[in-house]
Order: sequence, then structure tokens, then C-alpha cells
Amino acid sequence: MVSNRSNFSQYSALSAEELAAKLDRMYFADAVDIVNHLSFDQALAAFEHLPLDCAIGLFNKTELLRATALLTSLESEKAADILDGMAVVRAKDIFQDMNEKNRRRLFVLLEPATRTDLQKLMNYPRRSAGALMTTEFITVLADWTVEATLNLIRTVETGRETVYTAYIIDPETNVLLSAISLRLLVLSKPKAKVIDAAKHAQPIQCSPTMHQRDLARLFRRYDLLSIAVVDEANHIIGIVTVDNVLDSMTKTMSEETQKFGGMEALEKPYMQITFLNMLEKRGGWLCLLFVGEMLTASVMQHYEHELAHAIVLTLFIPLIMSSGGNSGSQATSLIIRALALNEIRLGDWWRVVLREIPMGLSLGAILGAIGYARVLVWQFTGIYNYGDHWFLIALTVGGTLIAIVMFGSLVGSMLPFVLKAMGFDPASASAPFVATFVDVAGIAIYFSIAAFILAGTLL
Amino acid sequence: MVSNRSNFSQYSALSAEELAAKLDRMYFADAVDIVNHLSFDQALAAFEHLPLDCAIGLFNKTELLRATALLTSLESEKAADILDGMAVVRAKDIFQDMNEKNRRRLFVLLEPATRTDLQKLMNYPRRSAGALMTTEFITVLADWTVEATLNLIRTVETGRETVYTAYIIDPETNVLLSAISLRLLVLSKPKAKVIDAAKHAQPIQCSPTMHQRDLARLFRRYDLLSIAVVDEANHIIGIVTVDNVLDSMTKTMSEETQKFGGMEALEKPYMQITFLNMLEKRGGWLCLLFVGEMLTASVMQHYEHELAHAIVLTLFIPLIMSSGGNSGSQATSLIIRALALNEIRLGDWWRVVLREIPMGLSLGAILGAIGYARVLVWQFTGIYNYGDHWFLIALTVGGTLIAIVMFGSLVGSMLPFVLKAMGFDPASASAPFVATFVDVAGIAIYFSIAAFILAGTLL
Repeated sequence: MVSNRSNFSQYSALSAEELAAKLDRMYFADAVDIVNHLSFDQALAAFEHLPLDCAIGLFNKTELLRATALLTSLESEKAADILDGMAVVRAKDIFQDMNEKNRRRLFVLLEPATRTDLQKLMNYPRRSAGALMTTEFITVLADWTVEATLNLIRTVETGRETVYTAYIIDPETNVLLSAISLRLLVLSKPKAKVIDAAKHAQPIQCSPTMHQRDLARLFRRYDLLSIAVVDEANHIIGIVTVDNVLDSMTKTMSEETQKFGGMEALEKPYMQITFLNMLEKRGGWLCLLFVGEMLTASVMQHYEHELAHAIVLTLFIPLIMSSGGNSGSQATSLIIRALALNEIRLGDWWRVVLREIPMGLSLGAILGAIGYARVLVWQFTGIYNYGDHWFLIALTVGGTLIAIVMFGSLVGSMLPFVLKAMGFDPASASAPFVATFVDVAGIAIYFSIAAFILAGTLL
Repeated sequence: MVSNRSNFSQYSALSAEELAAKLDRMYFADAVDIVNHLSFDQALAAFEHLPLDCAIGLFNKTELLRATALLTSLESEKAADILDGMAVVRAKDIFQDMNEKNRRRLFVLLEPATRTDLQKLMNYPRRSAGALMTTEFITVLADWTVEATLNLIRTVETGRETVYTAYIIDPETNVLLSAISLRLLVLSKPKAKVIDAAKHAQPIQCSPTMHQRDLARLFRRYDLLSIAVVDEANHIIGIVTVDNVLDSMTKTMSEETQKFGGMEALEKPYMQITFLNMLEKRGGWLCLLFVGEMLTASVMQHYEHELAHAIVLTLFIPLIMSSGGNSGSQATSLIIRALALNEIRLGDWWRVVLREIPMGLSLGAILGAIGYARVLVWQFTGIYNYGDHWFLIALTVGGTLIAIVMFGSLVGSMLPFVLKAMGFDPASASAPFVATFVDVAGIAIYFSIAAFILAGTLL
């Protein structure tokens, strides 16, 4: 099942009935692979013959390509049945992908409950518990028995294998009281009250606005399979299951890597995105960084005099700039993750400053020593002649490296804090952004130090 | 439970018995927080009074600080009982943390099964299914009834809430035949054969050497709660549960961000790592990159003549270098993720080349146009005078930007492929490494283009 059993052409040769029968016996994920390789008409014909349950299962997979086009090409009644049966989160995605005409045609055919759920879901922010939650979950009243709860689970057809918890609510107020896992239900005495069988008084719960990152933390902390999403009155409005968290985490991982790499996050796989869309995602940031980096030229124009008198200084510009950028990029990557994992909080910024200053100075001293040695070695071995003032030049390079690495570490570590304090995602801090910032300041630092050390000699 | 209920001092005042009684009624994760805030002696006393089940639960949490010290300070018999009861993965971590004396003292007291499991686990590579798996799972013979299976689940005390699947093996050969979820067991007729009640013929399984990244892909693909780990004879040797995958994914996310940021991955949280350890993790790569970047100085020395005659060229060095680095960093982040998600494979490198060349040229053309315009605007508005040959200089800057952005995109996108082809993790490609590589080539490209365009005028 795992490997590529992908002799897909054999399936194209089958009749729609035969194909549907075959797909119905497979894992949804494998069936989706096959449907993705069919022509559009073949795929549509297969869906026309698939049992409703299986069709719902396939549309529930985000991997199904052409989902919106397939669904809107099906007979309206069947399409509405599928939408009613689907995970609401996924139905929402498909709905948002439709054109206005189809949306209007299908929306009126949906069950009222689906309609309400869809409208609710569309209002929650991206990657929040509300946007990730499913509204299909099992609630029982606190005075039910374990047996009655198990019977309910047997009869309720949720179609979702991951629903492994029953939520216990107050018979009077509907307030969420507790949660009981299927495992505990099976272990408990059938005649016991379900509230007594539930192990912990208060279940782990979250608000619909909680970000996926914090959700993932709760899942890991309490080894959860699902979490209850509650409103302000403590009424359960949905659950987020571990498979949705896993999905969302993987997407976040890609988005954060791309942002850290200095571009807008992509919504589609690398090979599927159009050229123009990709150009936009990369070009926007690249232009912005370019305009920022233009300041380096302005700063250098300002030091025109020094440049003309000490061309030898220009030899070290790339070396110095890159060291500042690299140390900044290291510090940013560290702090982004420490903030994401709640290892440090916004108020800890000064603790980080107290760590990064000695760290930056030490790292700078190491690079400074290497840079200093480099000038000396080249000078004495005769590889290059830095002129009469080689000693002062070595000193300038070494001193600048200490200052710039310290500055880079400090700026790099503070940027995620600044973003967070301003209400942005700290993970949108990017290595190129830090580098650009440090570059501009780096040139200024370099020439200031040079002006000081070389005053009266070269300058 | 979720928020900080952290009035920890109240717990320090309790007697060991009272404290143990309180801890026993909490979520393990919350109890661990409290124990972490106790003094070592108090924590030890609490463990001496905790029921075995609860002590095992706490030691199972990776968040428990001083775990090895606490365990080895307990009475040998009790320590061995805890180790026997713990998830083997976690017991392995603690064992590897002990000194030789304690390891020898405790190892002989363990049950033979635990000893074998421990030795097996220590041999699997990091982040592999074998290293992540637990050896506590439920197997039943294919000819058992659903009822008998449920009864087994009721009696087996696994202590792990996440064990939600029973694995069905052949009564003769012990080969893994199928898997059945607890939910399906509850839904099935008690007298039915368990193998008939299981929905799919072959369960989703993996080898003990499968990497966590591929595991996560399977979990997402099939919405799994656990996966069977099988040996070559198709005998089940363990299971990996979704909570371990979630944990491992979070750690991988941090490691990859740190590597991409140009440093060695940390094993501990930012605030807990020692200064020297941190210096090592960051200094190593920083020095390596620094030495690589030194080549820029050598390249520039080579173009000494051009530099002396056209100092104006130096003004654009930072701008040109950073554009190459930024476009490379973008391309690397894209390809790292696309490879991690199996969107592209090693053999697709030429497809990526075919995409990145026109992409790099287009992005380069945009930046080139801005750079060109910048020289013109500064020249005409009189902000800066680039001399008689300002037009040729603008042409040099624009042309170099096209070449360098294309080069950066190409190098950045190919680096993860090269690493993968060499057997390394493509995610160890770092933004600073790409930037350093592109910088050195960038200087050479710049001066070559300048030498060509400005020959006979400035040069």
C-alpha cells in the first residue's frame, strides 16, 4: 500500500462500474492517487458510480486534485449529498474554490446544519482551532451510563475513524463537563455513570481562535487524539483531531521555511504553481530587499573620500557583511523556534539580550582573530601587499568583525520579538531581511572604525 | 488546566504524602510541571510516595527534568519497576543518560523482556521508526472473535491511552495479517471473527529504518493513530503512535530551522544550553562560512587593477552580492520543502533547472531594471555623479544583476539535490552556505562583466 503500485494505466481501461467497485475497496489515499491519474471524464464517471460513503471519503482527502471541478460537474443532488457528508473544513475549502453561480446552486440544496456550520467556519482566522475543527463529534449527558454511551457510538455514523472521545455535557446547562476516551469506555463497567467513569474532571479544551501552533503544543503535552473547542459559555462547538493538527503542522513547516528563506509562502506544491504566481511570491520580497539594500550604496557614497584613499578596505567588504548576516541568521532561527515552542516569552527579550551580547562578542572575537591572522599571513608570506599600514588594516578588519557579529546577533535575535510585539507572526522573520538590515549598518560600522583607526595614516 | 496555574510554591509546603496524593489526581503533564519546580529532595520524596502507575506516567514525559538523577536516587527495586513499566523509548533515553555504575546496577534488575527491548532500540538510527516505536501493543490471532479481542484489551494494562489498534497475526506463522481499530471492534458483532471484522486486508506498516519524515507522510496520508513496524519476515516488532510522530516532528522543525539558519541544531532549549555549548554550535559553522567567504577577498585582489580604476564599481558590491544570496536562499527553502514532502524526487532535478533558469532570469531582469533605473535617477537628479561613463556603469550593474540572480536561483535550488544525492539530509542546506557560495562567484561575475562592458573606457 505504501510503495508506488502505480501502474495507473490499467485503471483507465476499466469501465466506470468496474473502476468504482475497485476504488471502493481501497484505502481512500490510494484511490485518490488513481483518480488523480484518470482523465477528467473518467474520474467524473467513476464518481457517478461510487457509493456515497466512498465518494465522501475521497472528497475528504486534500490530495484529491480537481475536487471543485469534479463536484460541480456531478448532478446537483449528489453533489449536495457529498457536501453534507464531508468534513465541514474540507467542504469549506471546496466551497471557497467555486464560482458564484455554482455556490448559489449548491448552497440551497445543503442541509440547514451544514449551511450553518459552513458559514461559521468561514469566519474563523486561518490556522485557528475554529478553522481546523470538525463539527462532527459525540456528546452525551452526564447522567448517561457507559453502556448507553457505547450504544450511541455504535449507532452514530460519523464516518471518521479519528473520533475516539465522547464529550460529556451538563443535562441542564449544556456546559462541557468532561471527556471520556473510547478506550476508557470499553474498560469501564457498563452500568456505571459515564461522568464517574471519566478520569479527569475538566477536559483539555481550547477557544476557536487558538493558533495551530498552540494547539500542537497541547496535543503533545497531553498526548491527545482530539481536543474540544468551546465558546465563551463553555459549550462545545467542535473538536480538532490529531490528523488535522498533523496536516496543518506540515503546511506550517513549509510556510515557515519559505518565509525564513525570504519569500511569500506558496499555497501549492512547487511543481504545480504557475510561473507568474511564483514570480509574484519571490519577486515581491526580492524587490523589497533590493530597495533596502540600495542603502548600502548610499552609505558607501557617503564614505567616498575614505574609499578613494584606501581601496584596500573594499577587499574586506563582502567578508564583513556576510559575517554580520550569518550571525544574524543564526540568532533569528534560534529565537523563532524558542518563541514557537514557548521556551521563551515576549517578556524574556532582555534575557536574550543578556545572552546574545556576550555570545556575539565571543563569536566576533573568534572571527576577528581569524580575519586579523589572515591579513598578517598574506602580508608576511607575500601573497598580497596591504601597504605600509597593513597592521592598522588588520586591526580595522578584526575590530569591525567583533562589532558586526555582535550587532548581527543582537538584531537577529530581537527581530522575532519585535514582530511578535507588533502582533505579527515571529516566524515571518527572514534570514535575508536580517542580512539586509545588518549589511547597511555594517558598512557604516566598518567605515567608522576605519576612519577612527586609520585617521592620519591612510585616511 | 491549560493556562498557567503555576502557584508552585503552595506545593513545596505540603508533606510528601499529601503532595503525592495531589499529583496522583492530575494530568501527568501538569504534575510534571509541579515536580520540576520542587527541590530535588522534595521531588524524590514525592516519587517515593507515588503509586507505581503515576510514577511511570511522570517518567514517561520527556518534559520531566532531572529524570535520570531522580530515578537513580530511588531504591533499586522501585527504579527497576518504573523502568519496566515505562515506554521503552523513554527508558532508553534515561538509560543512555546514566553513568556506567548505575546502568549496571539497574540493568540486572530489569525483566528479561525489557532488557531485550532496550538493547534492540539502542541499535536503531535516530529519528527512525525503530527508535520511535513502542514495543507495547496488542496482537490477537486471526481466528479470535471480536469479543475475545475486546476482553484482551480490557485486561492488558498498557497504560498508554494511544493504543487504539489491535494487530491480527497468523496463528501458524505469526505474520502480520491485518489491523483493527478499537472503534471498529466496538461497532462489530461480538461473535464475528476479528479478521473478518477488520476492514482492510493489509495494514499500513513500515520498516524499523523508515525516517520520521516518511512516517509523518504515512500518518497524514492514511489518517493513522499508529503504524505497525515489521521486520523482514513481516512479524510486528513494535508500533509508532501519533503522539511520538508529533513530538518528533516538532523537534525536526526546530532542527531544520536552525540548520537552515546556518548553525548546528541544538539538543536543548535556548535558555537551558550552556554558553560554551552554544558557542560551539554557532561558532563552528560561522568560522567555516568565514573561511569560505575569504575567497571573496582573494577574488577582489585578483581584480585589483579594475578596482583602482573604477572605484565607483565598489559602491554596488553589497547590492549585487545580497541579491544573489537572497535569490539563492529563496530557491533553497523551496526545494528543501518540496523534497521533504516528496513533491519532487531526486530524478526531478532537471525539471527544477528548467523552471529555475527562466525564473532566475525574470527575477534578475526585474532587479536589473530597478538597479539600472537607480543609477539613472541618481545621475540625473544630481544625487550622485557616477562620472562620464554612468551609462555603461548602469548597464554593468543591470547586466550583473540578471546573471547573479539567475546563478543564485540555480545554485540555491540544486544544493538540496546535491546533498540528497550524496546521502545527506537535503534539509541541512543552509541560507548562509548558499549565500557564501554565490558571493564568491558573484564578485567574479561582476568584474568580468565590468571588464567586458567598460573595456577601453574606465578600464
